[in-house]
Amino acid sequence: MESYVIGIDLGGTNTVIGLVDVKGHILAKDDSIKTQAHPEIEEYTDAIANVIAKLAKENGCEGKIEGVGIGAPMANYYTGEIVNAANLPWKGIVPLGWLIEKKTGLPTKVTNDANAAAIGEMKYGVAQGMKDFIVITLGTGVGSGVVANGQLIYGHDGFAGELGHVTAPVLEGRSCGCGRVDCLETYASATGIVRTAKIWLGTRTDESVLRNIECDKLTSKMLYDAAMDGDKLANEIFEFTGAVLGDAFCNFIAFSAPEAIVLFGGLANAGELLLEPIRKRMNENVVFLWKDKVKVLKSSLPGADAAVLGASALGWKA
Amino acid sequence: MESYVIGIDLGGTNTVIGLVDVKGHILAKDDSIKTQAHPEIEEYTDAIANVIAKLAKENGCEGKIEGVGIGAPMANYYTGEIVNAANLPWKGIVPLGWLIEKKTGLPTKVTNDANAAAIGEMKYGVAQGMKDFIVITLGTGVGSGVVANGQLIYGHDGFAGELGHVTAPVLEGRSCGCGRVDCLETYASATGIVRTAKIWLGTRTDESVLRNIECDKLTSKMLYDAAMDGDKLANEIFEFTGAVLGDAFCNFIAFSAPEAIVLFGGLANAGELLLEPIRKRMNENVVFLWKDKVKVLKSSLPGADAAVLGASALGWKA
Repeated sequence: MESYVIGIDLGGTNTVIGLVDVKGHILAKDDSIKTQAHPEIEEYTDAIANVIAKLAKENGCEGKIEGVGIGAPMANYYTGEIVNAANLPWKGIVPLGWLIEKKTGLPTKVTNDANAAAIGEMKYGVAQGMKDFIVITLGTGVGSGVVANGQLIYGHDGFAGELGHVTAPVLEGRSCGCGRVDCLETYASATGIVRTAKIWLGTRTDESVLRNIECDKLTSKMLYDAAMDGDKLANEIFEFTGAVLGDAFCNFIAFSAPEAIVLFGGLANAGELLLEPIRKRMNENVVFLWKDKVKVLKSSLPGADAAVLGASALGWKA
Repeated sequence: MESYVIGIDLGGTNTVIGLVDVKGHILAKDDSIKTQAHPEIEEYTDAIANVIAKLAKENGCEGKIEGVGIGAPMANYYTGEIVNAANLPWKGIVPLGWLIEKKTGLPTKVTNDANAAAIGEMKYGVAQGMKDFIVITLGTGVGSGVVANGQLIYGHDGFAGELGHVTAPVLEGRSCGCGRVDCLETYASATGIVRTAKIWLGTRTDESVLRNIECDKLTSKMLYDAAMDGDKLANEIFEFTGAVLGDAFCNFIAFSAPEAIVLFGGLANAGELLLEPIRKRMNENVVFLWKDKVKVLKSSLPGADAAVLGASALGWKA
């Protein structure tokens, strides 16, 4: 009998639920649930259970769903809980996995979005067949999922893989939302690269189309467009950001010697503009054992559906 | 029937072979083999096989030995090979595990000394019962063994866990033997701490008993003795070194969220002199999720025998 899983991308704004087959095809998707519209977790999880039942019924999959996987901020894989998530309506500790399991009767696994992405890449994406790799998500922040010996590393408490909050191998003194200083994500996220642009527009005097944009309106997409149009400053910003990531990857490689590092999320869409300087710096600076040995790849999961697919991969029985 | 294992500590000078029981007691030990006296690997492994046979016979353990574990520089766990080890007599790639297995008839596992230490701590030491921890060896260099999900992380190529060669979260521009700059071991090893002392004796002018020692004769033990005698400069050197390690540990914790970080090797014998500033900085600077949650422990394996015990732990069937 065909089996299916449910993948849920629980974001601060939208909750997207997908019905997924074993090959990673999304048969049906529902984004009708607005996360912030449900201040009560009981009511929110009721809404999710209803959508799952509806998706199963409409697609002839009743009784064929193997499990539910959820990618959510501050999610603990071991306990199924969401813990003090700043951007979600439910405060403190919320037993999300337990509630969904109770309301659907389906085994439910919960983890953060970067870990879900890593499992998604392993199950359906560029990391198929790999036993040791790292996924780095480059979005508003930087997240990560680390796979070693074919297993995701959750750590002793369920929160491992916060590589956005290692110290970047540049020490400019940038303050991070987490309270630390010079975390990798203050340089290498969509917001980090915009910070670099603002600083450089102040410290440098060379011409750039970026100077025509109101400072507070700068986005990473504008930097990308400027770089692709040949703007020198914008190109140097990508080179710098790639070099910071390349140096950081040298450290990650010394930790777990992955076969590949897979980039995922908004800023990863810059493609070779970012990948090329990453590879260059990484192979210049990595410990000699790993020179030219570790691949840097872009996620192959389809953009808009990647988060749902990643989450769904958790739903399969081990 | 009682089972035993053989542990071999393959060092640049001595090769120490121990017969070990399931509780981590060394029943007998042989250090008659001088590594450099055997330029031919065939002859070296013959000598080892002879010592193993002798140890087994003399202790009534013939037929009761479950396997052999070897800790050696540049050892690859997957292949059993030693690869381009700078301080050993055999150049290139040497199939050490295969040779010992052939000559003794015993299953043989090979890994580097820090990984062996990690398995030793898990089997007999302070990490018993832990599924997620990191061992950091602080000797002439800095090595590491990372355990996650109850398994040592070897990486895709067998060489994972080179945490002595991550970039230290201080950027003074210290050149490392590996060709990189500012590797952790240029600050936090026995040689790194002596480098700090030499630099500080030059940049600072305050009094210190260290000024009475010929610069090239300074050792980490002398720094320890001076600090314990109340020398202010020496104490500050340990505080600095502890802070560098504490900051580095923040990064390691963000990677694998270990339950504990265990310090092993010469410099770890400084005990609280080093541990206290490590814990202080670590808990000040770690991502809030892990504040006051991760233990920093000193190895409990008995000093001189720790390397043999660690290696022996590899010899047990999984």
